[in-house]
Amino acid sequence: MRILISNDDGIDSQGIAALAEELKKIGDIIVIAPRTEQSAVGHAITMKIPLRITEYYKNGDFFGYAIEGTPADCIKIGIRNILKTPPDIVISGINHGSNAAINIIYSGTVSAAREAAIMDVPAIAVSVTSHEAKDFRFAAKVTAKLAQQVLKHGLPNGTLLNVNVPDVPEEKISGMLLTQQGKSKWDDIYEERCDPYGKKYYWLTGNLVETDKVLETDQFAIKNNYVSVTPIHFDLTDYKTYNSMKSWQIENLLNHD
Amino acid sequence: MRILISNDDGIDSQGIAALAEELKKIGDIIVIAPRTEQSAVGHAITMKIPLRITEYYKNGDFFGYAIEGTPADCIKIGIRNILKTPPDIVISGINHGSNAAINIIYSGTVSAAREAAIMDVPAIAVSVTSHEAKDFRFAAKVTAKLAQQVLKHGLPNGTLLNVNVPDVPEEKISGMLLTQQGKSKWDDIYEERCDPYGKKYYWLTGNLVETDKVLETDQFAIKNNYVSVTPIHFDLTDYKTYNSMKSWQIENLLNHD
Repeated sequence: MRILISNDDGIDSQGIAALAEELKKIGDIIVIAPRTEQSAVGHAITMKIPLRITEYYKNGDFFGYAIEGTPADCIKIGIRNILKTPPDIVISGINHGSNAAINIIYSGTVSAAREAAIMDVPAIAVSVTSHEAKDFRFAAKVTAKLAQQVLKHGLPNGTLLNVNVPDVPEEKISGMLLTQQGKSKWDDIYEERCDPYGKKYYWLTGNLVETDKVLETDQFAIKNNYVSVTPIHFDLTDYKTYNSMKSWQIENLLNHD
Repeated sequence: MRILISNDDGIDSQGIAALAEELKKIGDIIVIAPRTEQSAVGHAITMKIPLRITEYYKNGDFFGYAIEGTPADCIKIGIRNILKTPPDIVISGINHGSNAAINIIYSGTVSAAREAAIMDVPAIAVSVTSHEAKDFRFAAKVTAKLAQQVLKHGLPNGTLLNVNVPDVPEEKISGMLLTQQGKSKWDDIYEERCDPYGKKYYWLTGNLVETDKVLETDQFAIKNNYVSVTPIHFDLTDYKTYNSMKSWQIENLLNHD
């Protein structure tokens, strides 16, 4: 099994090291990840400036390729120009902090896996629920198991799995659940400050308003210490509204002059 | 009608000027847009550095607020800290270049509108199909008409309209169609070059492989000179795979040690 590993926290992060350590037990790994942290970059890709690829060494040993770009860039250039042929699976993470509910939209970790799905490569994005997580071994083990399930069962082209692992001791994990993306959203707050030159600037903070109350949602599952596995895709069409909008008869809109 | 206007090409672009010019005929407009071009930033948001807001003047007249951030940032801070209360509608564009099929994923223009939808504000993203577009007046008129339809019929919370207008003379427009996101994808090419110091770098180019062949898809509709209107949302759950994955019985996966 050829496994391409990426992330959004950067190639020197603890989460990707734990993932690589565990996944090399089950396949041939190659790490291609952003040179610097790329959290919350969403599905950004680099077009206006060129990308560079550098070899990254850890304690004197080759660890992987660092890309001066976004997580989606890493998958695109990694598969096209470094691997040359698609891997069997792409695994992105392990992210510091959950990527559930609305956070999926902003996540660079998920976008790396989504870019793989766009290229018809099976993919998993994996996060632990705390930004202060120190031990990624359980999350790494869970991911390895799930990767083997993905290769056994297969995933439809264009679908990826978004996995969130509670940051609690292993014995406190309630189990693993198949979930849907929750509806919880941020109540954003922009904190206003003044720089030493008298000019205002604003920091984004806020609170996640947890409206999800059933275990079938990623947000509520992780709150209850379940490992959450959500199949997601990149077909953004709102089919329900598509059907209801037929009554608008927009095909006549240009005739109304 | 209070209309918040944003884009991803930057506050000084021609597309947003044409949009503002037309929309002020139908409502009170406020422009809050990125200070610099933000194409292909996807749904990136700025968290690691603070945002700044500056007033932007055009020919001596106040035009709007420029944000040193992404399109999604503009909507968040614009609604929270500048407008204070949500507008009746957010309109993002007019983008230079189509945002159809897979390009929706990478688009900053769409992400501004999507951020509005996340905040339960009705929203439209609008693009003309050519990067060399010079005349945005027809696209602006179409958008104004559609905005009035959105306010008349309403949109479900979380849904936005993604509009693409062919860059052809108005008399060559075939009509307007309600569409779904197409499946066309990029065949990426990273062009390898060498800098003056002997180091390699890579530019992203590529070709869109147009696999969409029915007028019900955005990509084929615009190819046939129709104005395309696609309702999209941010629920990424792949429900079909969610149902089929029940047979994996992942709830037992952690017991297999």
